[in-house]
Amino acid sequence: MPRIYWYQNRFLAENEVRISPEDRGYYFGDGVYEVFRVYGGRLFEAEAHLARLRRSADGIRLPLSHADGDWLPKLNELIRLNDLREGTLYLQITRGSAPRNHLFPSSAEPVVMAYCTEVSRPLAAMEAGYAAITLPDTRWLHCDFKTLNLLANVLAKQAAADRGAADAILHRDGTVTESSASNVMIVRQGRLLTHPANQLILHGVTRAVVLRLAVQAGIPAEERPFTLEELFTADEVLLTGTTIEIMPVISVDGQRIGSGAPGPVTRRLQREFERLIG
Amino acid sequence: MPRIYWYQNRFLAENEVRISPEDRGYYFGDGVYEVFRVYGGRLFEAEAHLARLRRSADGIRLPLSHADGDWLPKLNELIRLNDLREGTLYLQITRGSAPRNHLFPSSAEPVVMAYCTEVSRPLAAMEAGYAAITLPDTRWLHCDFKTLNLLANVLAKQAAADRGAADAILHRDGTVTESSASNVMIVRQGRLLTHPANQLILHGVTRAVVLRLAVQAGIPAEERPFTLEELFTADEVLLTGTTIEIMPVISVDGQRIGSGAPGPVTRRLQREFERLIG
Repeated sequence: MPRIYWYQNRFLAENEVRISPEDRGYYFGDGVYEVFRVYGGRLFEAEAHLARLRRSADGIRLPLSHADGDWLPKLNELIRLNDLREGTLYLQITRGSAPRNHLFPSSAEPVVMAYCTEVSRPLAAMEAGYAAITLPDTRWLHCDFKTLNLLANVLAKQAAADRGAADAILHRDGTVTESSASNVMIVRQGRLLTHPANQLILHGVTRAVVLRLAVQAGIPAEERPFTLEELFTADEVLLTGTTIEIMPVISVDGQRIGSGAPGPVTRRLQREFERLIG
Repeated sequence: MPRIYWYQNRFLAENEVRISPEDRGYYFGDGVYEVFRVYGGRLFEAEAHLARLRRSADGIRLPLSHADGDWLPKLNELIRLNDLREGTLYLQITRGSAPRNHLFPSSAEPVVMAYCTEVSRPLAAMEAGYAAITLPDTRWLHCDFKTLNLLANVLAKQAAADRGAADAILHRDGTVTESSASNVMIVRQGRLLTHPANQLILHGVTRAVVLRLAVQAGIPAEERPFTLEELFTADEVLLTGTTIEIMPVISVDGQRIGSGAPGPVTRRLQREFERLIG
Protein backbone atom coordinates (compact mmCIF):
# COMPACT_ATOMS: atom_id res chain seq x y z
CA MET A 1 0.00 0.00 0.00
CA PRO A 2 1.50 3.39 -0.93
CA ARG A 3 2.15 5.56 2.07
CA ILE A 4 -0.25 8.41 2.86
CA TYR A 5 1.33 11.55 4.30
CA TRP A 6 -0.13 14.27 6.44
CA TYR A 7 1.37 17.38 4.85
CA GLN A 8 0.31 20.98 5.33
CA ASN A 9 -2.92 19.88 6.96
CA ARG A 10 -3.92 17.59 4.08
CA PHE A 11 -3.68 13.85 3.58
CA LEU A 12 -1.66 13.24 0.41
CA ALA A 13 -0.09 10.42 -1.54
CA GLU A 14 3.69 10.19 -1.19
CA ASN A 15 4.35 11.45 -4.73
CA GLU A 16 2.25 14.55 -4.08
CA VAL A 17 4.53 15.69 -1.27
CA ARG A 18 7.18 17.97 -2.70
CA ILE A 19 9.34 20.14 -0.50
CA SER A 20 10.34 23.64 -1.59
CA PRO A 21 14.08 24.11 -2.19
CA GLU A 22 13.71 27.14 0.07
CA ASP A 23 12.32 25.21 3.02
CA ARG A 24 14.44 26.24 6.00
CA GLY A 25 14.52 22.60 7.04
CA TYR A 26 16.55 22.00 3.90
CA TYR A 27 18.82 25.07 4.17
CA PHE A 28 19.50 25.11 7.89
CA GLY A 29 17.97 22.01 9.49
CA ASP A 30 15.69 24.62 11.01
CA GLY A 31 13.00 22.37 12.43
CA VAL A 32 12.03 19.85 15.09
CA TYR A 33 10.62 16.34 14.97
CA GLU A 34 9.31 13.38 16.92
CA VAL A 35 9.24 9.64 16.27
CA PHE A 36 6.23 8.07 17.98
CA ARG A 37 5.85 4.34 18.60
CA VAL A 38 2.63 2.67 17.46
CA TYR A 39 1.62 -0.58 19.16
CA GLY A 40 -1.62 -2.32 18.18
CA GLY A 41 -2.64 0.65 16.04
CA ARG A 42 -2.31 3.12 18.95
CA LEU A 43 0.23 5.83 19.75
CA PHE A 44 2.37 4.98 22.77
CA GLU A 45 3.16 7.81 25.21
CA ALA A 46 1.64 10.35 22.81
CA GLU A 47 1.37 13.09 25.43
CA ALA A 48 5.04 12.79 26.39
CA HIS A 49 6.11 13.06 22.74
CA LEU A 50 3.87 16.08 22.16
CA ALA A 51 5.18 17.76 25.31
CA ARG A 52 8.74 17.25 24.07
CA LEU A 53 7.83 18.54 20.63
CA ARG A 54 6.50 21.70 22.25
CA ARG A 55 9.69 21.98 24.31
CA SER A 56 11.92 21.52 21.24
CA ALA A 57 9.91 24.08 19.30
CA ASP A 58 10.15 26.56 22.18
CA GLY A 59 13.88 25.88 22.34
CA ILE A 60 14.43 26.96 18.75
CA ARG A 61 11.71 29.65 18.95
CA LEU A 62 9.46 27.96 16.40
CA PRO A 63 5.78 28.80 17.01
CA LEU A 64 3.61 25.68 16.61
CA SER A 65 0.59 26.29 14.46
CA HIS A 66 -1.56 23.70 16.20
CA ALA A 67 -2.42 23.27 19.82
CA ASP A 68 -1.68 19.79 21.13
CA GLY A 69 -5.37 18.98 21.15
CA ASP A 70 -5.43 19.50 17.40
CA TRP A 71 -2.52 17.16 16.64
CA LEU A 72 -3.77 13.94 18.12
CA PRO A 73 -6.91 13.40 16.02
CA LYS A 74 -4.85 14.03 12.85
CA LEU A 75 -2.12 11.63 13.87
CA ASN A 76 -4.65 8.96 14.77
CA GLU A 77 -6.39 9.50 11.45
CA LEU A 78 -3.03 9.10 9.70
CA ILE A 79 -2.49 5.77 11.46
CA ARG A 80 -5.96 4.63 10.43
CA LEU A 81 -5.55 5.72 6.78
CA ASN A 82 -2.26 3.82 6.59
CA ASP A 83 -3.76 0.82 8.37
CA LEU A 84 -0.73 0.72 10.69
CA ARG A 85 -0.67 -1.78 13.52
CA GLU A 86 2.97 -1.84 14.62
CA GLY A 87 5.49 0.76 13.63
CA THR A 88 6.43 4.40 13.97
CA LEU A 89 4.92 7.75 13.19
CA TYR A 90 7.33 10.48 12.11
CA LEU A 91 6.24 14.09 12.65
CA GLN A 92 8.40 17.02 11.54
CA ILE A 93 7.87 20.78 11.62
CA THR A 94 10.16 23.30 9.93
CA ARG A 95 10.12 27.08 10.14
CA GLY A 96 8.75 27.30 6.60
CA SER A 97 9.98 28.43 3.21
CA ALA A 98 11.60 31.79 2.54
CA PRO A 99 14.57 33.20 0.61
CA ARG A 100 17.76 32.02 2.30
CA ASN A 101 18.62 34.25 5.27
CA HIS A 102 19.70 33.17 8.74
CA LEU A 103 17.18 35.59 10.28
CA PHE A 104 13.70 34.24 10.99
CA PRO A 105 11.40 35.05 8.06
CA SER A 106 8.70 37.56 8.88
CA SER A 107 5.83 35.74 7.21
CA ALA A 108 6.69 32.09 6.49
CA GLU A 109 4.27 29.43 7.71
CA PRO A 110 5.71 26.34 9.46
CA VAL A 111 5.76 23.24 7.23
CA VAL A 112 4.26 20.19 8.95
CA MET A 113 4.82 16.68 7.62
CA ALA A 114 3.94 13.30 9.12
CA TYR A 115 3.88 9.72 7.91
CA CYS A 116 3.84 6.17 9.24
CA THR A 117 6.23 3.29 8.74
CA GLU A 118 5.71 -0.36 9.55
CA VAL A 119 8.49 -1.35 11.97
CA SER A 120 8.64 -4.58 13.91
CA ARG A 121 9.85 -4.67 17.47
CA PRO A 122 13.56 -5.69 17.46
CA LEU A 123 12.88 -8.88 19.41
CA ALA A 124 15.97 -10.82 18.34
CA ALA A 125 18.33 -7.94 19.10
CA MET A 126 16.65 -7.28 22.47
CA GLU A 127 17.20 -10.94 23.30
CA ALA A 128 20.85 -11.10 22.17
CA GLY A 129 22.08 -7.58 22.93
CA TYR A 130 24.11 -5.03 21.01
CA ALA A 131 27.80 -4.51 20.44
CA ALA A 132 28.64 -0.80 20.80
CA ILE A 133 31.66 1.43 20.34
CA THR A 134 32.59 4.69 22.08
CA LEU A 135 33.19 8.01 20.36
CA PRO A 136 33.73 11.61 21.46
CA ASP A 137 30.44 13.54 21.55
CA THR A 138 30.94 16.33 19.00
CA ARG A 139 27.35 17.59 18.94
CA TRP A 140 26.10 21.05 19.77
CA LEU A 141 25.16 22.10 23.30
CA HIS A 142 21.38 21.77 22.94
CA CYS A 143 20.95 18.05 22.51
CA ASP A 144 17.79 18.41 24.61
CA PHE A 145 16.06 19.95 21.57
CA LYS A 146 15.05 17.26 19.07
CA THR A 147 16.02 19.16 15.92
CA LEU A 148 16.92 18.35 12.32
CA ASN A 149 20.60 19.12 12.96
CA LEU A 150 21.58 15.46 13.12
CA LEU A 151 24.81 15.20 11.17
CA ALA A 152 26.95 14.32 14.20
CA ASN A 153 24.47 11.57 15.09
CA VAL A 154 24.53 10.27 11.50
CA LEU A 155 28.33 10.16 11.44
CA ALA A 156 28.52 8.42 14.83
CA LYS A 157 26.00 5.76 13.84
CA GLN A 158 27.82 5.10 10.57
CA ALA A 159 31.19 4.88 12.35
CA ALA A 160 29.69 2.22 14.61
CA ALA A 161 28.42 0.21 11.64
CA ASP A 162 31.82 0.49 9.96
CA ARG A 163 33.33 -1.19 13.00
CA GLY A 164 30.71 -3.93 13.08
CA ALA A 165 28.79 -2.43 15.99
CA ALA A 166 25.13 -1.47 16.29
CA ASP A 167 25.57 1.91 17.97
CA ALA A 168 28.09 4.45 19.25
CA ILE A 169 28.07 5.54 22.90
CA LEU A 170 29.16 9.18 23.09
CA HIS A 171 31.21 10.91 25.77
CA ARG A 172 32.39 14.44 26.51
CA ASP A 173 35.89 14.33 27.95
CA GLY A 174 35.24 10.91 29.42
CA THR A 175 31.72 11.56 30.72
CA VAL A 176 29.13 9.40 28.95
CA THR A 177 26.18 11.38 27.57
CA GLU A 178 24.04 9.11 25.38
CA SER A 179 24.32 7.12 22.15
CA SER A 180 23.88 8.23 18.55
CA ALA A 181 20.09 7.92 18.80
CA SER A 182 19.26 6.53 22.26
CA ASN A 183 19.84 7.15 25.95
CA VAL A 184 22.41 5.06 27.84
CA MET A 185 22.00 3.49 31.28
CA ILE A 186 24.33 1.34 33.33
CA VAL A 187 23.80 -0.95 36.29
CA ARG A 188 26.38 -1.01 39.07
CA GLN A 189 25.82 -2.96 42.28
CA GLY A 190 22.12 -3.18 41.54
CA ARG A 191 21.71 0.56 40.93
CA LEU A 192 20.54 2.00 37.62
CA LEU A 193 22.49 5.12 36.55
CA THR A 194 21.86 7.50 33.67
CA HIS A 195 22.97 11.00 32.67
CA PRO A 196 20.77 13.79 34.09
CA ALA A 197 18.23 15.28 31.70
CA ASN A 198 20.09 18.51 31.02
CA GLN A 199 21.09 20.23 27.75
CA LEU A 200 23.65 17.51 26.87
CA ILE A 201 21.19 14.70 26.18
CA LEU A 202 17.80 14.17 24.64
CA HIS A 203 15.18 13.76 27.32
CA GLY A 204 14.08 10.38 26.05
CA VAL A 205 10.46 9.33 26.39
CA THR A 206 11.52 5.70 26.85
CA ARG A 207 14.22 6.84 29.30
CA ALA A 208 11.48 8.40 31.47
CA VAL A 209 9.31 5.28 31.17
CA VAL A 210 12.20 3.04 32.21
CA LEU A 211 13.09 5.22 35.21
CA ARG A 212 9.44 5.02 36.27
CA LEU A 213 9.37 1.24 35.82
CA ALA A 214 12.57 0.91 37.85
CA VAL A 215 11.06 2.80 40.77
CA GLN A 216 7.92 0.66 40.60
CA ALA A 217 10.04 -2.49 40.55
CA GLY A 218 12.10 -1.39 43.54
CA ILE A 219 15.30 -0.93 41.51
CA PRO A 220 17.23 2.08 42.87
CA ALA A 221 17.75 4.56 40.02
CA GLU A 222 19.86 7.68 39.97
CA GLU A 223 20.30 10.42 37.37
CA ARG A 224 23.97 11.31 37.57
CA PRO A 225 26.81 11.57 35.04
CA PHE A 226 29.07 8.51 34.83
CA THR A 227 32.46 8.01 33.25
CA LEU A 228 33.75 5.77 30.49
CA GLU A 229 35.52 3.76 33.15
CA GLU A 230 32.24 3.21 35.01
CA LEU A 231 30.71 2.16 31.68
CA PHE A 232 33.39 -0.43 30.95
CA THR A 233 33.27 -1.88 34.47
CA ALA A 234 29.47 -1.81 34.76
CA ASP A 235 27.54 -4.99 35.54
CA GLU A 236 25.07 -4.15 32.79
CA VAL A 237 24.74 -1.53 30.04
CA LEU A 238 21.48 -0.80 28.28
CA LEU A 239 20.11 1.63 25.71
CA THR A 240 16.60 3.02 25.75
CA GLY A 241 14.73 4.47 22.80
CA THR A 242 11.41 4.63 21.02
CA THR A 243 12.17 1.97 18.42
CA ILE A 244 14.78 -0.11 20.28
CA GLU A 245 12.80 -0.06 23.57
CA ILE A 246 15.21 -1.53 26.18
CA MET A 247 18.29 -2.83 24.41
CA PRO A 248 21.06 -4.67 26.29
CA VAL A 249 24.65 -3.80 25.35
CA ILE A 250 26.89 -6.81 25.82
CA SER A 251 30.18 -5.38 24.57
CA VAL A 252 31.73 -1.94 24.19
CA ASP A 253 34.78 -1.37 21.98
CA GLY A 254 35.16 -5.15 21.86
CA GLN A 255 35.29 -5.49 25.65
CA ARG A 256 32.72 -7.72 27.29
CA ILE A 257 30.29 -5.99 29.68
CA GLY A 258 29.59 -7.97 32.86
CA SER A 259 29.17 -11.63 31.96
CA GLY A 260 28.89 -10.77 28.26
CA ALA A 261 25.15 -11.50 28.23
CA PRO A 262 22.10 -9.35 29.08
CA GLY A 263 21.90 -9.03 32.88
CA PRO A 264 19.08 -9.51 35.37
CA VAL A 265 18.16 -5.83 35.85
CA THR A 266 17.88 -5.33 32.09
CA ARG A 267 15.77 -8.47 31.78
CA ARG A 268 13.51 -7.36 34.62
CA LEU A 269 12.99 -3.93 33.02
CA GLN A 270 12.28 -5.55 29.65
CA ARG A 271 9.58 -7.71 31.28
CA GLU A 272 8.00 -4.68 32.97
CA PHE A 273 8.07 -2.76 29.67
CA GLU A 274 6.45 -5.71 27.91
CA ARG A 275 3.66 -5.68 30.47
CA LEU A 276 3.18 -1.94 30.02
CA ILE A 277 2.71 -2.11 26.25
CA GLY A 278 0.89 -5.48 26.30
CA MET B 1 13.30 37.39 -14.48
CA PRO B 2 12.40 34.07 -12.80
CA ARG B 3 15.39 32.32 -11.32
CA ILE B 4 16.93 29.40 -13.17
CA TYR B 5 18.30 26.60 -10.99
CA TRP B 6 20.91 24.01 -11.68
CA TYR B 7 19.38 20.90 -10.18
CA GLN B 8 20.41 17.27 -10.70
CA ASN B 9 22.53 18.27 -13.66
CA ARG B 10 19.72 20.09 -15.46
CA PHE B 11 18.84 23.76 -15.76
CA LEU B 12 15.27 24.20 -14.47
CA ALA B 13 12.80 26.94 -13.64
CA GLU B 14 12.33 27.54 -9.91
CA ASN B 15 8.87 25.95 -9.81
CA GLU B 16 10.24 22.76 -11.37
CA VAL B 17 12.61 22.16 -8.47
CA ARG B 18 10.87 19.98 -5.91
CA ILE B 19 12.77 18.30 -3.12
CA SER B 20 11.84 14.81 -1.96
CA PRO B 21 10.53 14.64 1.63
CA GLU B 22 13.09 11.86 2.05
CA ASP B 23 16.08 13.99 1.03
CA ARG B 24 18.65 13.50 3.79
CA GLY B 25 19.29 17.22 3.67
CA TYR B 26 15.76 17.64 4.96
CA TYR B 27 15.85 14.85 7.58
CA PHE B 28 19.35 15.31 8.98
CA GLY B 29 20.90 18.42 7.43
CA ASP B 30 23.11 15.79 5.80
CA GLY B 31 24.84 17.92 3.21
CA VAL B 32 27.38 20.64 2.48
CA TYR B 33 27.23 23.97 0.68
CA GLU B 34 29.11 26.99 -0.56
CA VAL B 35 28.15 30.61 -1.18
CA PHE B 36 30.29 32.08 -3.96
CA ARG B 37 30.61 35.80 -4.65
CA VAL B 38 30.01 37.02 -8.19
CA TYR B 39 31.57 40.33 -9.23
CA GLY B 40 31.09 41.63 -12.76
CA GLY B 41 29.51 38.36 -13.83
CA ARG B 42 32.51 36.28 -12.67
CA LEU B 43 33.02 33.94 -9.74
CA PHE B 44 35.45 35.33 -7.15
CA GLU B 45 37.94 32.87 -5.58
CA ALA B 46 36.14 29.97 -7.24
CA GLU B 47 39.02 27.53 -6.67
CA ALA B 48 39.16 28.28 -2.95
CA HIS B 49 35.42 27.69 -2.59
CA LEU B 50 35.59 24.43 -4.52
CA ALA B 51 38.55 23.25 -2.45
CA ARG B 52 36.57 23.96 0.72
CA LEU B 53 33.51 22.19 -0.68
CA ARG B 54 35.68 19.14 -1.30
CA ARG B 55 37.05 19.38 2.23
CA SER B 56 33.56 19.70 3.77
CA ALA B 57 32.32 16.75 1.72
CA ASP B 58 35.31 14.66 2.79
CA GLY B 59 34.63 15.71 6.38
CA ILE B 60 31.12 14.26 6.35
CA ARG B 61 32.14 11.37 4.06
CA LEU B 62 29.97 12.54 1.17
CA PRO B 63 31.40 11.44 -2.19
CA LEU B 64 31.17 14.26 -4.74
CA SER B 65 29.76 13.12 -8.04
CA HIS B 66 31.63 15.69 -10.10
CA ALA B 67 35.29 16.44 -10.29
CA ASP B 68 36.10 20.11 -9.72
CA GLY B 69 36.78 20.56 -13.39
CA ASP B 70 33.19 19.61 -14.12
CA TRP B 71 31.62 22.09 -11.70
CA LEU B 72 33.02 25.33 -12.99
CA PRO B 73 31.56 25.33 -16.52
CA LYS B 74 28.12 24.54 -15.07
CA LEU B 75 28.33 27.30 -12.48
CA ASN B 76 29.48 29.80 -15.09
CA GLU B 77 26.65 28.73 -17.36
CA LEU B 78 24.22 29.23 -14.48
CA ILE B 79 25.50 32.78 -13.99
CA ARG B 80 25.12 33.45 -17.71
CA LEU B 81 21.59 32.01 -17.89
CA ASN B 82 20.54 34.18 -14.94
CA ASP B 83 22.29 37.20 -16.40
CA LEU B 84 23.92 37.85 -13.01
CA ARG B 85 26.43 40.66 -12.69
CA GLU B 86 26.75 41.19 -8.93
CA GLY B 87 25.52 38.73 -6.37
CA THR B 88 25.99 35.27 -4.97
CA LEU B 89 25.86 31.72 -6.22
CA TYR B 90 24.57 29.12 -3.76
CA LEU B 91 25.65 25.51 -4.29
CA GLN B 92 24.42 22.69 -2.08
CA ILE B 93 24.95 18.93 -2.14
CA THR B 94 23.08 16.47 0.06
CA ARG B 95 23.64 12.74 0.51
CA GLY B 96 20.49 11.99 -1.49
CA SER B 97 17.03 10.59 -0.82
CA ALA B 98 16.37 7.36 1.01
CA PRO B 99 14.02 6.00 3.69
CA ARG B 100 14.91 7.66 7.00
CA ASN B 101 17.83 5.89 8.67
CA HIS B 102 20.89 7.45 10.26
CA LEU B 103 23.13 5.01 8.39
CA PHE B 104 24.41 6.11 4.97
CA PRO B 105 22.10 4.75 2.27
CA SER B 106 23.68 2.11 0.07
CA SER B 107 22.48 3.44 -3.25
CA ALA B 108 21.26 7.05 -2.98
CA GLU B 109 22.69 9.59 -5.40
CA PRO B 110 23.80 12.98 -4.03
CA VAL B 111 21.34 15.79 -4.77
CA VAL B 112 23.05 18.87 -6.24
CA MET B 113 21.30 22.24 -6.36
CA ALA B 114 22.62 25.68 -7.31
CA TYR B 115 21.12 29.07 -8.02
CA CYS B 116 22.09 32.73 -8.21
CA THR B 117 20.85 35.75 -6.30
CA GLU B 118 21.40 39.40 -7.08
CA VAL B 119 23.10 40.92 -4.02
CA SER B 120 24.65 44.36 -3.88
CA ARG B 121 27.86 44.97 -2.04
CA PRO B 122 27.01 46.34 1.46
CA LEU B 123 28.74 49.65 0.81
CA ALA B 124 26.87 51.74 3.38
CA ALA B 125 27.40 49.19 6.17
CA MET B 126 31.08 48.77 5.26
CA GLU B 127 31.44 52.54 5.54
CA ALA B 128 29.57 52.92 8.85
CA GLY B 129 30.39 49.63 10.62
CA TYR B 130 28.34 47.07 12.52
CA ALA B 131 27.07 46.85 16.06
CA ALA B 132 27.59 43.30 17.37
CA ILE B 133 26.74 41.33 20.48
CA THR B 134 28.56 38.39 22.10
CA LEU B 135 27.07 34.96 22.75
CA PRO B 136 28.37 31.57 23.90
CA ASP B 137 29.32 29.36 20.95
CA THR B 138 27.00 26.35 21.26
CA ARG B 139 27.79 24.78 17.90
CA TRP B 140 29.17 21.32 17.25
CA LEU B 141 32.90 20.61 17.13
CA HIS B 142 33.30 20.52 13.34
CA CYS B 143 32.63 24.13 12.41
CA ASP B 144 35.36 23.70 9.78
CA PHE B 145 32.89 21.68 7.68
CA LYS B 146 30.40 23.95 5.90
CA THR B 147 27.31 21.80 6.45
CA LEU B 148 23.54 22.28 6.53
CA ASN B 149 23.48 21.93 10.33
CA LEU B 150 23.09 25.66 10.89
CA LEU B 151 20.52 25.99 13.63
CA ALA B 152 22.94 27.41 16.20
CA ASN B 153 24.04 30.00 13.65
CA VAL B 154 20.43 30.88 12.85
CA LEU B 155 19.57 31.35 16.53
CA ALA B 156 22.67 33.47 17.17
CA LYS B 157 21.98 35.76 14.21
CA GLN B 158 18.36 36.21 15.28
CA ALA B 159 19.38 36.94 18.88
CA ALA B 160 21.65 39.69 17.54
CA ALA B 161 18.82 41.21 15.50
CA ASP B 162 16.51 41.07 18.52
CA ARG B 163 19.01 43.21 20.40
CA GLY B 164 19.35 45.69 17.54
CA ALA B 165 22.73 44.36 16.40
CA ALA B 166 23.87 43.12 13.00
CA ASP B 167 25.73 40.02 14.15
CA ALA B 168 26.70 37.86 17.14
CA ILE B 169 30.36 37.21 17.96
CA LEU B 170 30.68 33.74 19.48
CA HIS B 171 33.02 32.54 22.21
CA ARG B 172 33.84 29.25 23.90
CA ASP B 173 34.50 29.84 27.59
CA GLY B 174 35.74 33.33 26.82
CA THR B 175 37.79 32.51 23.72
CA VAL B 176 36.41 34.20 20.61
CA THR B 177 35.85 31.80 17.70
CA GLU B 178 33.94 33.58 14.92
CA SER B 179 30.56 35.20 14.35
CA SER B 180 27.24 33.66 13.35
CA ALA B 181 28.24 33.64 9.68
CA SER B 182 31.65 35.33 9.38
CA ASN B 183 35.18 35.21 10.73
CA VAL B 184 36.30 37.73 13.37
CA MET B 185 39.59 39.63 13.44
CA ILE B 186 40.89 42.21 15.86
CA VAL B 187 43.68 44.77 15.65
CA ARG B 188 45.85 45.39 18.72
CA GLN B 189 48.91 47.63 18.55
CA GLY B 190 48.92 47.42 14.78
CA ARG B 191 48.77 43.61 14.70
CA LEU B 192 45.91 41.69 13.08
CA LEU B 193 44.77 38.68 15.13
CA THR B 194 42.31 35.93 14.22
CA HIS B 195 41.44 32.46 15.51
CA PRO B 196 43.53 29.65 13.98
CA ALA B 197 41.88 27.66 11.21
CA ASN B 198 41.13 24.55 13.27
CA GLN B 199 37.90 22.60 13.80
CA LEU B 200 36.26 25.40 15.82
CA ILE B 201 35.84 27.87 12.96
CA LEU B 202 34.97 27.91 9.31
CA HIS B 203 38.09 28.37 7.21
CA GLY B 204 36.76 31.48 5.52
CA VAL B 205 37.74 32.21 1.94
CA THR B 206 37.63 35.95 2.63
CA ARG B 207 39.57 35.35 5.86
CA ALA B 208 42.39 33.82 3.80
CA VAL B 209 42.24 36.65 1.26
CA VAL B 210 42.46 39.27 4.03
CA LEU B 211 45.40 37.54 5.72
CA ARG B 212 47.17 37.53 2.35
CA LEU B 213 46.37 41.19 1.76
CA ALA B 214 47.67 42.06 5.23
CA VAL B 215 51.00 40.40 4.55
CA GLN B 216 51.28 42.18 1.20
CA ALA B 217 50.49 45.50 2.90
CA GLY B 218 53.09 44.93 5.62
CA ILE B 219 50.51 44.54 8.38
CA PRO B 220 51.71 41.91 10.87
CA ALA B 221 49.07 39.17 11.13
CA GLU B 222 48.87 36.28 13.53
CA GLU B 223 46.51 33.31 13.76
CA ARG B 224 46.03 32.78 17.47
CA PRO B 225 43.01 32.54 19.78
CA PHE B 226 42.08 35.75 21.59
CA THR B 227 39.79 36.39 24.53
CA LEU B 228 36.61 38.41 24.99
CA GLU B 229 38.66 40.86 27.00
CA GLU B 230 41.09 41.31 24.11
CA LEU B 231 38.08 41.81 21.85
CA PHE B 232 36.56 44.54 24.01
CA THR B 233 39.87 46.38 24.42
CA ALA B 234 40.95 45.98 20.78
CA ASP B 235 41.81 49.03 18.70
CA GLU B 236 39.71 47.64 15.84
CA VAL B 237 37.35 44.72 15.29
CA LEU B 238 36.37 43.47 11.84
CA LEU B 239 34.37 40.66 10.31
CA THR B 240 35.25 38.95 7.05
CA GLY B 241 32.89 37.00 4.83
CA THR B 242 31.86 36.32 1.27
CA THR B 243 28.93 38.74 1.20
CA ILE B 244 30.01 41.24 3.87
CA GLU B 245 33.62 41.40 2.58
CA ILE B 246 35.53 43.39 5.25
CA MET B 247 33.05 44.76 7.76
CA PRO B 248 34.14 47.06 10.60
CA VAL B 249 32.58 46.42 14.02
CA ILE B 250 32.28 49.67 15.95
CA SER B 251 30.53 48.42 19.07
CA VAL B 252 30.16 45.11 20.90
CA ASP B 253 27.45 44.56 23.53
CA GLY B 254 26.88 48.33 23.42
CA GLN B 255 30.52 49.11 24.25
CA ARG B 256 32.44 51.26 21.81
CA ILE B 257 35.43 49.59 20.10
CA GLY B 258 38.50 51.86 19.83
CA SER B 259 37.36 55.33 18.81
CA GLY B 260 33.89 54.04 17.92
CA ALA B 261 34.58 54.42 14.19
CA PRO B 262 36.21 52.10 11.64
CA GLY B 263 39.99 52.18 12.21
CA PRO B 264 42.94 52.68 9.88
CA VAL B 265 43.94 49.02 9.51
CA THR B 266 40.38 48.05 8.57
CA ARG B 267 40.23 50.93 6.08
CA ARG B 268 43.56 49.94 4.56
CA LEU B 269 42.42 46.32 4.14
CA GLN B 270 39.13 47.47 2.61
CA ARG B 271 41.07 49.53 0.04
CA GLU B 272 43.32 46.59 -0.81
CA PHE B 273 40.29 44.32 -1.16
CA GLU B 274 38.62 46.88 -3.42
CA ARG B 275 41.70 46.88 -5.66
CA LEU B 276 41.70 43.08 -5.78
CA ILE B 277 38.11 42.78 -6.98
CA GLY B 278 38.21 45.92 -9.12
